[in-house]
Amino acid sequence: MDSLFRIAIDSMSGDNGFEAVVPAALMFLKEHNDSILILVGDEIKLNAELEKHKQVNNERLIVKHATQVVTMDEAPAVALRGKKDSSMRVAINLVKSGDADAAVSAGNTGALMATGRFVLRMLPGIDRPAICTAIPAADGHTYMLDLGANIDSSSEHLYQFAVMGSELVSAIDGLPKPKVGLLNIGQEDIKGNEQVKAAHERLQGGEFNYIGFVEGDDIFHGDVDVIVCDGFVGNVALKTTEGLAKMLSQELKRGYKKNIFSKLAALVSYPVLKAFSRRFDHRRYNGASFLGLKGIVIKSHGGADSVAFANAISIARKAVMEKVPSRIEKHLQKHLVD
Amino acid sequence: MDSLFRIAIDSMSGDNGFEAVVPAALMFLKEHNDSILILVGDEIKLNAELEKHKQVNNERLIVKHATQVVTMDEAPAVALRGKKDSSMRVAINLVKSGDADAAVSAGNTGALMATGRFVLRMLPGIDRPAICTAIPAADGHTYMLDLGANIDSSSEHLYQFAVMGSELVSAIDGLPKPKVGLLNIGQEDIKGNEQVKAAHERLQGGEFNYIGFVEGDDIFHGDVDVIVCDGFVGNVALKTTEGLAKMLSQELKRGYKKNIFSKLAALVSYPVLKAFSRRFDHRRYNGASFLGLKGIVIKSHGGADSVAFANAISIARKAVMEKVPSRIEKHLQKHLVD
Repeated sequence: MDSLFRIAIDSMSGDNGFEAVVPAALMFLKEHNDSILILVGDEIKLNAELEKHKQVNNERLIVKHATQVVTMDEAPAVALRGKKDSSMRVAINLVKSGDADAAVSAGNTGALMATGRFVLRMLPGIDRPAICTAIPAADGHTYMLDLGANIDSSSEHLYQFAVMGSELVSAIDGLPKPKVGLLNIGQEDIKGNEQVKAAHERLQGGEFNYIGFVEGDDIFHGDVDVIVCDGFVGNVALKTTEGLAKMLSQELKRGYKKNIFSKLAALVSYPVLKAFSRRFDHRRYNGASFLGLKGIVIKSHGGADSVAFANAISIARKAVMEKVPSRIEKHLQKHLVD
Repeated sequence: MDSLFRIAIDSMSGDNGFEAVVPAALMFLKEHNDSILILVGDEIKLNAELEKHKQVNNERLIVKHATQVVTMDEAPAVALRGKKDSSMRVAINLVKSGDADAAVSAGNTGALMATGRFVLRMLPGIDRPAICTAIPAADGHTYMLDLGANIDSSSEHLYQFAVMGSELVSAIDGLPKPKVGLLNIGQEDIKGNEQVKAAHERLQGGEFNYIGFVEGDDIFHGDVDVIVCDGFVGNVALKTTEGLAKMLSQELKRGYKKNIFSKLAALVSYPVLKAFSRRFDHRRYNGASFLGLKGIVIKSHGGADSVAFANAISIARKAVMEKVPSRIEKHLQKHLVD
């Protein structure tokens, strides 16, 4: 079988760099024989790591040299100007030149967004990119955007986010008419700030399944598929979710470790707790889509381990298969406002 | 012993009305012999309920008649103009006239805020009221404000929220210098919107222990005592927290109910799960302070049961004991900007 999908991997970024990326790539390739991966980064280090895994001759793993690395706290402008041969930049360049169908990076969000935007440019009809990911909910998950690409968004931007989120979910989850909600602080029409009220008007005219206002707790109810909000609010909601989930799991573990009886209870409870933690394992949700670019860029969590990073590569593959950017572009062309 | 504290209770509002309020009042009085409660509402219904509990002659429970009830979805302006004899309004009037030291209500947030503001007026130096409550965190809890009284806040408003939150926590938790953080989407100075950047400058000049930017996950880390944010963002974070906690607890319960083995595991785990759910019981955190008014108003969750409502009354008592409004007023007078 020919390798249909080519995915460029920024192999040097993130907290764990190539030591997480190489095992992730191997995990991914084991599951998907329709893809090849281009590992971008220091070729000496990458080849040594491949050697360690006895994968130097794997023809579905190509090493592409890059001499620089964007650090996690580097300002986007500095990375753009000063690191033209970074693993991040070279991976995105491969998408631009058509040598890769998508890029995946665990690097610094701001630099990745700026580089993606600069190299790939925006889709016609989209003013600003947005970050979108799935969050576990009752009986499934809910997609949310924007999660921090923008800090202030007009109603027109929120409308564009709704188009992009709706097309993404329709493509990735195969839902014909994903339910789109607008995040607000009350379900009555009277509540909310001016920006949200204006966006509500705008979204009602959209060619997607807009269901109206939702609130923070609706992220987890499973009654809405895509939640649209500005990047500041979305980022706070995402971080709040991560923080609470982490604290609760630590407290539960601490409770089970308290004494000999609780340790016994933990042992007996093992299958229940295992299924529970598998269901809400954040690694299974790793991989945020940068929507609105002329090309596919997937952002992995900076602290991702290889299981989590492999998941981000799978999301990139799915986006390539379903041609997410061109679906968004077609939607906008079809429903052009004259 | 003389009854030192007099708390007016809106006994007709909330989803459960007097049927939750009366048992809550009795629970509260059992624990605190320094307070008397004024139950405001339909005297026939309230006396019948007291009769049921054989408490008609309890001299620390006074019934004050009110003929109207503000409904949960009533617009604030309608409640203000049309319901001048509502249990909510009469309870707040008692605070205004000095017949009560605080008012507690499970009613409609918007109407309660509008009524509190109209009847009691704002403290000098405070432009807008804010809603503040404690959220469980690792090794304790974190206070957050504003949770929805305002939808757009200037840096000056956020500064005032910081003063109020700091004084509240210092009073209630007895912390001499509570750590105050400003909610943002990144800890570097470069991130955040204009409003947050301006507020960061303003807060650095404040006479409280300002520690800088915090993010959504910091709510749960226990490293900050008071988190300041605008009401839209705060309300989304609060609802997100409530929604996730509820979903996780339901999913855990579902896991333990799956089959005979998991039911056995639940039985063995009972002490661990019980301690865990007690620690994070939202009822123990029920009772939000409306800060910035010339008087104490505590908002209970609309769906509060009697345990939760009793907790809200305890918060009112503590605020009376510690004279929260006058502490805020003194802080502002002392650090007046010329």
